[in-house]
Amino acid sequence: MTHLSKDPAKLVSRVRRLQGQLDAVARQLEGGADCGDVLQLVASIRGALNGLILELIDDHVRHHVVDPAHEADPARAKGASDLLAVLRTYLK
Amino acid sequence: MTHLSKDPAKLVSRVRRLQGQLDAVARQLEGGADCGDVLQLVASIRGALNGLILELIDDHVRHHVVDPAHEADPARAKGASDLLAVLRTYLK
Amino acid sequence: MTHLSKDPAKLVSRVRRLQGQLDAVARQLEGGADCGDVLQLVASIRGALNGLILELIDDHVRHHVVDPAHEADPARAKGASDLLAVLRTYLK
Amino acid sequence: MTHLSKDPAKLVSRVRRLQGQLDAVARQLEGGADCGDVLQLVASIRGALNGLILELIDDHVRHHVVDPAHEADPARAKGASDLLAVLRTYLK
Repeated sequence: MTHLSKDPAKLVSRVRRLQGQLDAVARQLEGGADCGDVLQLVASIRGALNGLILELIDDHVRHHVVDPAHEADPARAKGASDLLAVLRTYLK
Repeated sequence: MTHLSKDPAKLVSRVRRLQGQLDAVARQLEGGADCGDVLQLVASIRGALNGLILELIDDHVRHHVVDPAHEADPARAKGASDLLAVLRTYLK
Repeated sequence: MTHLSKDPAKLVSRVRRLQGQLDAVARQLEGGADCGDVLQLVASIRGALNGLILELIDDHVRHHVVDPAHEADPARAKGASDLLAVLRTYLK
Repeated sequence: MTHLSKDPAKLVSRVRRLQGQLDAVARQLEGGADCGDVLQLVASIRGALNGLILELIDDHVRHHVVDPAHEADPARAKGASDLLAVLRTYLK
C-alpha cells in the first residue's frame, strides 16, 4: 500500500538522470565554464525536476486518493480527473 | 572573465548536496517508502535548487552585467540593485 | 454539487482585492512610477494569486475528491491529507 | 528616467485584460460555476501575470541596467543578453 507506482524503476532512472546532470553542472563550475551555459543547464534540470514532481503527485493521487480510471463514484472520478488536469498546468 | 564567482567551491558543494538528496530519493523509491515522505523530500530539493539558481543569477548579474557595489553610474547601480531584490522575490 | 465552497464570498473578496491591486499597477505605469516599486507590487500580486490558487485547489480536493475530515476509508483520508500538505509546499 | 518603457500603454492594456479575467472568475464563483472551469481560468490568468512580470523585468534590465542593443562594452552586452535569455526560461 505504500508503494508509489507499479513501476518505480522508471522514476528511479529519472532521478539518476538528474544526478548526472548535476554532475555536469559541478564540472562546469569547477572548470570555469561560461556562466550562460551553466544557467541554461540548471534551467533544464529545474524543468526535469518539475516533471518528476508532477509524476510523483499524479501517482500519489491515483494510488492513494482517487484513481479516475477505477473510481465507482462518477462525481469523485470527475473531481480527481479535473484535479490532475489542473495540477499538470500549475506544476509543469 | 568567464568564471562565475570568486568562490566556485561553495556552489559546487551545494550541487553535491543536491546530488546526495536525490540519492536519498532514489533509495526511498527503491525501498517502497511512504509516498508523502518522498514528496516532502523532493519539495526540499526543489527549494534548494531554486536557491542555487538564485545564487547563480545573482552572481552572473554582479560579475557580468552590473555590480551595484562597484558601479560608477549611480542610476545603473540602483537599477541593478532593484533587479537583484526583485529576482530574490520571484525566484525563491 | 458544483459549488466550490460553503463560502464563495470570501474567495470573491480575494479576487476583488487582486483587481484593486492591478488597478494600482495600471496607475503606476500611467504615472511613470519607479520601476522597482511597480515590480515589488506585481510580486505581491503574484503571491496573492498563488495563495488564491492554493485555496481553490484545496477546496476542490475537499469538496470534489476526498475530504480527509469526513472520509470513511483511513488510507484515503491519509492520502488526501498528504496531498494537501504537499500542494501547500509546491503552490505557495 | 523613471519611466518603464517607451510604450506604457501596451503594459497597461495587459493589466486591464488581467482585471477583466479576474472579473470573470468572480462571476464564476458567485454563479456557482464548475470548479474545474474556475481553476482553468485562474491558471490562464497566472500564465498572463507571469508574462507581464517577465516583460516588466526585461524592460527594467534594458532601461535601467544594461541594454544589450546599445551597450558599448561587449562583455556587458553579452552578460545582459545571457541574463535576459535565462530569465525568459525561469519566469515564463
